[in-house]
Amino acid sequence: MKPYVEMTKEELQELRKELSAQYKEFQGRDLKLDMSRGKPSAEQLDISMGMMDVLSSNDDLTCEDGTDCRNYGVLAGIKEAKELLADMMEVAPDHIIIYGNSSLNVMYDTVSRSMTQGVMGSTPWCKLDKVKFLCPVPGYDRHFSITEYFGIEMVNVPMTPTGPDMDLVEQLVASDDSIKGIWCVPKYSNPQGISYSDETVRRFARLKPAASDFRIYWDNAYTIHHLYDNDQDHLIEILAECKRAGNPDMVYKFASTSKVSFPGSGIAAIAASENNLTDIMKQLKIQTIGHDKVNQLRHVRFFKDIHGMVEHMRKHADIMRPKFEAVIETLEKELGGLQIGEWTSPKGGYFISFDCLDGCAKTIVAKCKKAGLVMTGAGATYPYGKDPHDSNIRIAPSYPTLPDLNQAMELFALCVKLVSIDHILAEKQ
Amino acid sequence: MKPYVEMTKEELQELRKELSAQYKEFQGRDLKLDMSRGKPSAEQLDISMGMMDVLSSNDDLTCEDGTDCRNYGVLAGIKEAKELLADMMEVAPDHIIIYGNSSLNVMYDTVSRSMTQGVMGSTPWCKLDKVKFLCPVPGYDRHFSITEYFGIEMVNVPMTPTGPDMDLVEQLVASDDSIKGIWCVPKYSNPQGISYSDETVRRFARLKPAASDFRIYWDNAYTIHHLYDNDQDHLIEILAECKRAGNPDMVYKFASTSKVSFPGSGIAAIAASENNLTDIMKQLKIQTIGHDKVNQLRHVRFFKDIHGMVEHMRKHADIMRPKFEAVIETLEKELGGLQIGEWTSPKGGYFISFDCLDGCAKTIVAKCKKAGLVMTGAGATYPYGKDPHDSNIRIAPSYPTLPDLNQAMELFALCVKLVSIDHILAEKQ
Repeated sequence: MKPYVEMTKEELQELRKELSAQYKEFQGRDLKLDMSRGKPSAEQLDISMGMMDVLSSNDDLTCEDGTDCRNYGVLAGIKEAKELLADMMEVAPDHIIIYGNSSLNVMYDTVSRSMTQGVMGSTPWCKLDKVKFLCPVPGYDRHFSITEYFGIEMVNVPMTPTGPDMDLVEQLVASDDSIKGIWCVPKYSNPQGISYSDETVRRFARLKPAASDFRIYWDNAYTIHHLYDNDQDHLIEILAECKRAGNPDMVYKFASTSKVSFPGSGIAAIAASENNLTDIMKQLKIQTIGHDKVNQLRHVRFFKDIHGMVEHMRKHADIMRPKFEAVIETLEKELGGLQIGEWTSPKGGYFISFDCLDGCAKTIVAKCKKAGLVMTGAGATYPYGKDPHDSNIRIAPSYPTLPDLNQAMELFALCVKLVSIDHILAEKQ
Repeated sequence: MKPYVEMTKEELQELRKELSAQYKEFQGRDLKLDMSRGKPSAEQLDISMGMMDVLSSNDDLTCEDGTDCRNYGVLAGIKEAKELLADMMEVAPDHIIIYGNSSLNVMYDTVSRSMTQGVMGSTPWCKLDKVKFLCPVPGYDRHFSITEYFGIEMVNVPMTPTGPDMDLVEQLVASDDSIKGIWCVPKYSNPQGISYSDETVRRFARLKPAASDFRIYWDNAYTIHHLYDNDQDHLIEILAECKRAGNPDMVYKFASTSKVSFPGSGIAAIAASENNLTDIMKQLKIQTIGHDKVNQLRHVRFFKDIHGMVEHMRKHADIMRPKFEAVIETLEKELGGLQIGEWTSPKGGYFISFDCLDGCAKTIVAKCKKAGLVMTGAGATYPYGKDPHDSNIRIAPSYPTLPDLNQAMELFALCVKLVSIDHILAEKQ
């Protein structure tokens, strides 16, 4: 196909007419398609239904160490759940605290605690004039919402194919002691599906922050969420690397089983150095009587161990892989060579990132919506919802069925084409 | 029995010798008894084991409104769980948000949010020089821990047989705008088992606080936790009463099923006015992807409705009642008429409160411990762990078996006697 920019005005107008007719036809279908969030499909949820059977009234709800999971007690999580999530998070069980059902909640609590109590003895952030976070962009909207909620100023750092621009990160972190954190989704990142390179992770571990209470918020949301069995991204483990680099306290690592078992009914965890965990436990013992141990036990009895979990994730991959491939295939078939968009081809995670021509993202998403396809809001992948180029669109292929997804992607490609033509035509005038 | 104070020095010394021998005998038994916390017994947990059977892989985990409980979504709780807890909390389902497993966590979050965000638009408390909470004493140690953790100054307000000293509450709240809250356990209070009188509740609802962001923290932890079927305390419902009094926004009401189903694996909730709920939802949508809906559904399928819950609580009562009666019986038999202690006889809840001679509580608890009986730490029922009279001891009869409890109470009474004799002898010198 000829790139749109190389087409004449007349050619574009002709094409526009044709595509508009197709769009009208789509509108007539009365579609209700949702690709807005990284929600597992019903088919994926079905593969975890065995979780509902592992604990019955005939079972003993006692831990290996004799703890009755039904009663109060055990603040940091039962031993066997710590072992399971430690293996998932590639850290030692001693470096883990098991939380409730949402790792987002753990991150929120971590920022909230820093606001009112400081970090390992530092001045509470709410007492400071200015607190900033670095935000690799595009990134995860819910991260940005937390920092915005607490009035923390967000500073954009561009993503590269190997992770955030580390020259910029190193420079900013070293020169500004109001920078207290950076949001990272280091593996199969949200939304691009990028995994940080070894060099990136090493440079993270060797940061020399001006602020002693600077922390890397390492949201390893997709740690075992591969699409392929023999082509998986691998990350240097950040806690160990920070320790080796002499910065053992510089990172909080987050994860959960939300997209392993059931979203909303999984278990979440934080991994950190002993100093950080001691700091966190001071809060935890005030905050709660402990998290849901029965659900922790349910997860352990269902998965048994990390191998069971990995086998389980292969079933997820079998459902996710065709969807990712369908998205890429449609994008290549419909948009390849047109020079009106670029996209990523992740090997795991939940998202594909699409970059359209500058200034077109909002219009494309709106056009999709008018024909019954809900995409993540344009701008959502940037702090304050402001994409400076108005070009990034997050594609979440997991929730729709494959036939719905194919329809949705055809419609999406059509909208990209139509909006791009209008954009180019306007520029030609 | 003759009151100890009326005994001669010689009589007391003789008695002391005899009781010391009994204490030595107790020490020889190598006891390990725990009456420190309000933990349900294993027997109580057993009556909820049916909860493990109501959801299996053959069941549809879909709500009445079509929501798939396994997936993301529904921030404030599924409709049927709201209905169940609304009935438990005696409010409308619209006035409820369902949380995770711990009402303590909800209270913590409520204070934490007020610290960083303020209350319905007020100045965040962390920006104020001074924030105070009123604390009816004796009270619940975990309430006091939350306010202490956030650097909130705690002001003691004495409890009376009808609730907190309302003259003092009214006066303090009206005159000091740094007073932002009051901790209440209005029904079968912790530790005294007192239920607030109608007059007390009415006066609460009619408070005229100097601070617009003053809130009553109404921890209705024992709302359906009666001991007797035909002799139950009843409270005027505080949300409705506040509304009638023209103060609809002045109260947060908390509850959970921790001592209904499983502690740590129950569901918690807050009830409040629409304005407050709107304020809370602003936080909630940032804080979490939602709470555990599968567990909400599990509770609904198990209890079915409030009648099912009430029937279930009768089973708890059948286990708790003999324990409470055994404690009271031993106290009356061993300490009645001696004038060395007073105690409450609650009709529900989890605690009995014991007041010994001033200056003796710490020594009594320490003496119990030396013979293998762990009581709640003396002082714990007061802010900062400081009981100004060193006289209040909380008795938690739920956890031990009845034979263990009888032994524990005999030992406790013995320690009270011994320490009281020492105290009286010291005063006679």
